[in-house]
Amino acid sequence: MTIYLHDIPLDKATESFSESLRASELDGILGEEELLLDEDAVGRVLARAVWAEICSPHYHASAMDGFAVLAADTDGAMPTNPVTLLYGEQALYVDTGDVLPSEMNAVIPIENVEPLDGNGDLSVESRCPYAIRIRSAAPPWQHVRPLGEDIVATQLVLPAGHTLRPVDMGAIAACGHDSIRAARKPRVAIIPTGTELVPVGAELKPGAIIEYNSIVLAGQVKQWGGTPNRFPIVIDELRLISEKVVEAAADHDLILLSAGSSAGSEDFSAQVVQQLGELLVHGVAVRPGHPVILGMIHKSQLAGDQPKYVPIIGVPGYPVSAALTGEIFVKPLIERWLGKQASTPMRIKAKITRKVTSPAGDDDFMRVAVGRVGDKVLAAPLQRGAGVISSLVRADGIVVIPRGTQGLPAGTEVDVQLYRSIDEIDRTIFAIGSHDVSLDLIAQYLATRGRRLTSANVGSLSGLVALRRDETHIAGSHLLDPDTGEYNLSYIGQYVPGRDLHVVELVRREQGLLVNPENPKNIRGLQDLTRPDIQFINRQRGAGTRVLLDYHLQWQGITSGDIAGYEKEEYTHLSLAAAISSGRADCGLGIAAAAQALGLDFLPLYSERYDLVIPSEYYCGELLAPLLEILHEDEFKKDVSRLPGYDTARMGDLVAVISQR
Amino acid sequence: MTIYLHDIPLDKATESFSESLRASELDGILGEEELLLDEDAVGRVLARAVWAEICSPHYHASAMDGFAVLAADTDGAMPTNPVTLLYGEQALYVDTGDVLPSEMNAVIPIENVEPLDGNGDLSVESRCPYAIRIRSAAPPWQHVRPLGEDIVATQLVLPAGHTLRPVDMGAIAACGHDSIRAARKPRVAIIPTGTELVPVGAELKPGAIIEYNSIVLAGQVKQWGGTPNRFPIVIDELRLISEKVVEAAADHDLILLSAGSSAGSEDFSAQVVQQLGELLVHGVAVRPGHPVILGMIHKSQLAGDQPKYVPIIGVPGYPVSAALTGEIFVKPLIERWLGKQASTPMRIKAKITRKVTSPAGDDDFMRVAVGRVGDKVLAAPLQRGAGVISSLVRADGIVVIPRGTQGLPAGTEVDVQLYRSIDEIDRTIFAIGSHDVSLDLIAQYLATRGRRLTSANVGSLSGLVALRRDETHIAGSHLLDPDTGEYNLSYIGQYVPGRDLHVVELVRREQGLLVNPENPKNIRGLQDLTRPDIQFINRQRGAGTRVLLDYHLQWQGITSGDIAGYEKEEYTHLSLAAAISSGRADCGLGIAAAAQALGLDFLPLYSERYDLVIPSEYYCGELLAPLLEILHEDEFKKDVSRLPGYDTARMGDLVAVISQR
Repeated sequence: MTIYLHDIPLDKATESFSESLRASELDGILGEEELLLDEDAVGRVLARAVWAEICSPHYHASAMDGFAVLAADTDGAMPTNPVTLLYGEQALYVDTGDVLPSEMNAVIPIENVEPLDGNGDLSVESRCPYAIRIRSAAPPWQHVRPLGEDIVATQLVLPAGHTLRPVDMGAIAACGHDSIRAARKPRVAIIPTGTELVPVGAELKPGAIIEYNSIVLAGQVKQWGGTPNRFPIVIDELRLISEKVVEAAADHDLILLSAGSSAGSEDFSAQVVQQLGELLVHGVAVRPGHPVILGMIHKSQLAGDQPKYVPIIGVPGYPVSAALTGEIFVKPLIERWLGKQASTPMRIKAKITRKVTSPAGDDDFMRVAVGRVGDKVLAAPLQRGAGVISSLVRADGIVVIPRGTQGLPAGTEVDVQLYRSIDEIDRTIFAIGSHDVSLDLIAQYLATRGRRLTSANVGSLSGLVALRRDETHIAGSHLLDPDTGEYNLSYIGQYVPGRDLHVVELVRREQGLLVNPENPKNIRGLQDLTRPDIQFINRQRGAGTRVLLDYHLQWQGITSGDIAGYEKEEYTHLSLAAAISSGRADCGLGIAAAAQALGLDFLPLYSERYDLVIPSEYYCGELLAPLLEILHEDEFKKDVSRLPGYDTARMGDLVAVISQR
Repeated sequence: MTIYLHDIPLDKATESFSESLRASELDGILGEEELLLDEDAVGRVLARAVWAEICSPHYHASAMDGFAVLAADTDGAMPTNPVTLLYGEQALYVDTGDVLPSEMNAVIPIENVEPLDGNGDLSVESRCPYAIRIRSAAPPWQHVRPLGEDIVATQLVLPAGHTLRPVDMGAIAACGHDSIRAARKPRVAIIPTGTELVPVGAELKPGAIIEYNSIVLAGQVKQWGGTPNRFPIVIDELRLISEKVVEAAADHDLILLSAGSSAGSEDFSAQVVQQLGELLVHGVAVRPGHPVILGMIHKSQLAGDQPKYVPIIGVPGYPVSAALTGEIFVKPLIERWLGKQASTPMRIKAKITRKVTSPAGDDDFMRVAVGRVGDKVLAAPLQRGAGVISSLVRADGIVVIPRGTQGLPAGTEVDVQLYRSIDEIDRTIFAIGSHDVSLDLIAQYLATRGRRLTSANVGSLSGLVALRRDETHIAGSHLLDPDTGEYNLSYIGQYVPGRDLHVVELVRREQGLLVNPENPKNIRGLQDLTRPDIQFINRQRGAGTRVLLDYHLQWQGITSGDIAGYEKEEYTHLSLAAAISSGRADCGLGIAAAAQALGLDFLPLYSERYDLVIPSEYYCGELLAPLLEILHEDEFKKDVSRLPGYDTARMGDLVAVISQR
């Protein structure tokens, strides 16, 4: 049987799924359960409204330690005209919370009372004296918490569908309940399939894929209020997968069948669904996501009058697609089954920092980093690949580029659905430019100091361009001026005109040639790059390392045209290292840390300065203060010094203050 | 030993506590533990940063099902100029996720390939043909996920202090970890004390107080990331309380000693702290809250090199004070112990709807309901009493009136710390005016339809005044015009001039006399109110019921001065009922539902119309649409009809459309 992917628009897919759920009476809460009123009920959703059984307080209660009196007895009391009340008849001692004696209607705090003995003198017995003398009248109901002041019997305390918070427990107890009726948690089976999958922690061979989508999906299900149940990995065999799905259908409310949802030779999910029930949708026009399957598994009749179908979602194998499938399809379903208000994300308007293209046929869920630079809120698109799980980790929000749109020009105002609070966004430092691993360390240090660092790795020159557009707080740069041998300053005048800037040294670091372990081709310096047996790999134009290379090639009189591979470009130190490690090239210029990361050898050649270029208004502002402090801390310098080829002697020194206005 | 309360400003109290924690080395995380990478790690806080162990992908991976090729071999391929590649030498079949063969550097999707057999004809074998023919060139690295595309070994993946989300699990697994180091959860002992306390669910006698503060505190501790441990109730006996505190100190990181923190005769908390350790603060100038105790308990030396002190917080007994003490003192402590970024609440600017007074010496934490009416965000102060837990349940946020301020006039712009999202605020319907229990039912119905109803019970006339000020979406009103016998309309012209309004009937309900069960004084009608043995209780001026009473007294020729208790006012039907139930009065005019709530008898006298008065722009707007729909639903009408004395025959009918502009 061949099954083809049909890309159905998201709203149609959702509608078809909803209809099927309605037909199976699976569109409301799945059931109720009684829960004791304790801290474990926090986060649960009320299946029934809570109406007050009793009043709170359930009696007229004294609100102070003092004497209960009849207000009328105190009429006329004044500093110059005290009134004396006989204890036992006209006044009775009460503690806070005590029942107000039925004949009384006010309380006078103990500190406002003069206790008297039988002779009319001040008494040492202050709580049970012969009489009390007061010097001001008490209005009726003074310092009394009347019956029902807080909650009145029969009143609505909390509606069904409400998610319980700690304070709700108090109100529910106060109005006479010792338990609540909560919506039963949906049980969700998560079945990872794939012969190439290995569990987390297993030994890794090339081609083996670490199975973590089931953990992400289980975490999502738990967070949204369901009970996840992760199955062991099932290899790509139709019969085995079918067996597991049948097994899961017996005692789960939803099945998430992970991977195998596309239309490849070993993608069995759609077949399984078709054989065991009804395939509603195969392929949804969302990106990333596409090969989503929505269906209903027919349940064995043994279950009696239980629902006859169990919904199943075929989740794509790429991790970003999987996580977004959770958000788009699983979350609303769990919320519906809990009887919860559908939650809507916080939104913010932002300008996208660069042009993006998008397939016109799809709703495109683009991950973005969000920050406030100057008076603008910016959304920087992150890596788009469905395999790049780190883009979801780094994402501050999602921009949905709707079907029918082929892309957005840079500067377009977009609507961002935020994953973080506005407050976190406001505490975000943007660093765009050349990347250095010490920026990761800064991010780590900042995390406990009320700041987040979001960095985009686009090369030194593009960082300066971002500064000119006021789209970053910081640009990391290591651009050598071939004419002067000086770093960065001459470029700043050219690429960031008209701004006042502070230039701060971050590190000096060694640049050199990355070669395979033990340097099998015996490369010794740039002069070897023209050897016919050497395949070189280069950095992109605008990268500081490329500028450095060209400067030294010129200095040594080497023609770039004579270097095989000079025209092949990589965008980061690490991808350059990966090109060598994987045999695509023999060597390239880069930093020692990248060599270390991938187990390459490193021939140090040059020491270069890596600066942070910062607009003066941000340099002096509150947002960046913790970052600038870190640069002067010994512990941080020590951490950076441990990186191979790093020199922190002048870290944090002000290189220049550039005034251009 | 007598201990006095000293009201120390909040910042000083916090400082003193922090200093003591620092001195005991209790100001950082309490410890680490290793957790397996599964869904249970969601919500835990990283004690250590996660750095990538391996790259993700950890090999060059095919991103499509198709043929791996060397890009150079495809040069020049065009629709009119196909290129043929020999299978096995120049092309190899790969599935998505497969290792890219080392000599290849691009993948051509299977659907863009013509498989050929040995004769050069199209082959039926599409995955392992003799050769493939292609009609467009593949650029290098097309459809390949290169090594480290997602994460590069040694890179920072997540900083310490980060709270784990589901997607983080994916990234941590992808970069080669199978576990994480999480901050150990603080163990918090919660000890409720008080002889008058009874546990939730126990039989209630007057004076008995339901002990639920420990549940609220436990819920808070759990929500903030600690492990709560609720102790059984301890009666007010110094020795017993001391014993429990010593017991708790042995294996907890924090002790919350609930109630007994004031300076009354049975308040032992301060003594206990002083005897067992150091009393740092007794009394903090916050409202509600005041009698907070901060201290350190000396720990038995048996514990070895463990910290010698365990912090203790004496939590006031009033429930609102207790919950706010949790937020102000416990939350930051737990966050610090988890190494978390201190969370800051979402804030919004709002105008307060009425004048509030505040003690100048205290930081005053005022609970407010927040909603958007027209173009204004409004904050309506809720009940201020420290005993009113429902005010926290209903609160949308907190306004802190700082020390040194004696109050705020109506209309002041204040800064609200929100408990809810802005989105929820925007979906809030304000109903200010006379209360009716059917509004509670509407709130219950609305909860699952994307709306919240917040109602303030201030009487019919004050509701109309709120409409005039555009401070409510709806005013509930049942004001009889004594001249015409008509309801509401004449008042609207007078109190809400210049606005276009829709008036909708909600219910007709019976008003009558509430009397004690079995009507012991044999009251038969208004004519009995002047009897010398009858004590009456009245509603406040401006209440619809008061207007109704006066109308009928006049009609029957009864002089109000002849009624004992005519001048005594209650503000709600239910508080009026409570006055009768508790023996403060013999009868009063009100609705049957209030009589039923408190088990009183009811003598029906009049049927009155209760309307919803709604500005036309809101009547026609999206916000109120679900509410107006509910009024026409049979199920809702049935629910309201079950209330005693309610008639829903004309529910939802438009009484009048008033155009005044």
